[in-house]
Amino acid sequence: MKTIKKYPLLIIGTGPAGLTASIYASRYGINHMIIGEAMGGLVFESHKICNFPGEQDISGIELINKIQKHAESLGHSLLIDKIVNISQKKKVFEIITQNKKVFLSDTILLAAGTKHRRLNLPDENKFIGHGISYCATCDAMFYKDKIVAVVGGSDSANTASLYLSQIAKKVYQIYRKDKLRGITAWIDQIKNNKKIEIIYNQEIIGLRGKEKLEKIILNNSYQGKKEIAINGLFIEIGAIPDKTLIQEALLKTDKNGYIKVTPDQKTSRNEIWAAGDITTASNNFHQIITACSEGAIAVESIFNFLQQNK
Amino acid sequence: MKTIKKYPLLIIGTGPAGLTASIYASRYGINHMIIGEAMGGLVFESHKICNFPGEQDISGIELINKIQKHAESLGHSLLIDKIVNISQKKKVFEIITQNKKVFLSDTILLAAGTKHRRLNLPDENKFIGHGISYCATCDAMFYKDKIVAVVGGSDSANTASLYLSQIAKKVYQIYRKDKLRGITAWIDQIKNNKKIEIIYNQEIIGLRGKEKLEKIILNNSYQGKKEIAINGLFIEIGAIPDKTLIQEALLKTDKNGYIKVTPDQKTSRNEIWAAGDITTASNNFHQIITACSEGAIAVESIFNFLQQNK
Repeated sequence: MKTIKKYPLLIIGTGPAGLTASIYASRYGINHMIIGEAMGGLVFESHKICNFPGEQDISGIELINKIQKHAESLGHSLLIDKIVNISQKKKVFEIITQNKKVFLSDTILLAAGTKHRRLNLPDENKFIGHGISYCATCDAMFYKDKIVAVVGGSDSANTASLYLSQIAKKVYQIYRKDKLRGITAWIDQIKNNKKIEIIYNQEIIGLRGKEKLEKIILNNSYQGKKEIAINGLFIEIGAIPDKTLIQEALLKTDKNGYIKVTPDQKTSRNEIWAAGDITTASNNFHQIITACSEGAIAVESIFNFLQQNK
Repeated sequence: MKTIKKYPLLIIGTGPAGLTASIYASRYGINHMIIGEAMGGLVFESHKICNFPGEQDISGIELINKIQKHAESLGHSLLIDKIVNISQKKKVFEIITQNKKVFLSDTILLAAGTKHRRLNLPDENKFIGHGISYCATCDAMFYKDKIVAVVGGSDSANTASLYLSQIAKKVYQIYRKDKLRGITAWIDQIKNNKKIEIIYNQEIIGLRGKEKLEKIILNNSYQGKKEIAINGLFIEIGAIPDKTLIQEALLKTDKNGYIKVTPDQKTSRNEIWAAGDITTASNNFHQIITACSEGAIAVESIFNFLQQNK
């Protein structure tokens, strides 16, 4: 193992929060490193974003690329790698990555976002990549003119259904409640889309198939039967923060696992701040714009901290 | 007077907070009206913005135009007018403008931003437009190859000095403290700029001139004298919320006059939310990105309120 360098700030996460934090850190003259497991976080998977101010219609990849280019133009260092260990000695953090790189830093900003929530059904793992997907943007093309189902009823499920309806022959949207949630514009489009059939008040309780997923089992009968034959299932039932990293950093969370932060994005632990979807900030409203804002607020607080502790 | 229409939501303010709120409101299907005194608020005057994620270098006018176009594409109604009266009868607000238009609304989002802070010196008003300006972007061109002074030491003063140095012959930057504040990138540029002379630990206590401003008077001697001959003075000592509107809406503020809000951007008064520079939110870090975020958070809260009170 090799210690690369000591930074005043290490940012964990390459999504909107981490990259905006990097932009602000560069403008404040804070030398920093960004480490993330994959470029862009979950935003990377959004096929259509219509509410980032100034961008009427942009894909997640395009938006993240723009913000990443912006951060890069101001001179950040970025590494795609997984953090496996965080320790602190005499107020200096030591961060070790999966590829055995070691970084030292005075402060940490944790902006590692969230991961897809799973149905937790038997065989769910077995069918991933063989009929089960958590990302319509990534995998829709495998289901051209086929029959797919989307589980979920909030914005991410709604946009997945709409996107899939452009590619698949038929889209079932299965939701455990009696009414879709979130942005009205998406809901109206779904209701007017002849390819999408919404199945309310149902949960998926089983997955069937040999090598590939072939059928899903519902908890109640739908049109006389409990089984629906499909080629693909898109699971869009929300996101959860990555426990491992939060536990590794010894941070306090709320009951849903989100990192508790104060108005300046400080966590329960000195010298660690957090921003973006992984936190309770912004009234728990997890949007690209709120994540960016939290990244900026955190860096202003970190800048003041570093100034006072020179 | 004529009642135009009743809206579920009336947004006051046409800056980043108000326009982002409009984008979110449209996406949520909330019919709304935006009223502001002038397009874009103070952002309109920024000649250079380098920290709005995704925009490496953009003027305030360009950025506001992009966000305004985005809001417009989703179908808002926008009116440039001044609100002179807000009252509430049976849970419905009645809002009257200077041009005697009357609007009714179920909820209000106050995003009216801030106004320039003044030096409050004798003759300050007399010299506005005759040597005194609060907006380098707007007025710099009147001072081509002339001598100007900028008062202030934070980001807005620093960027004003840098911009003026491209146009004027000489820029004095006068600051009451012994060190400039804010973004390090700007401070470094100022220190390396030969046209800018920083005068620390001084305040301006007098303004002299017949029809136009000719001299400023300092509180202490600088290089042997208390007077400096200048052609233009740019006052960049921060911004303050507009008291009139806040008092008209009967909202509680902190000691500096900013509207107190809860994490969902609610004010002390039912059915009124606030967002942007006018509030205490985002840890009092007043940025374009934080204002946008607050606008989004407020609208999510307003959407939930309207759903529950249908």
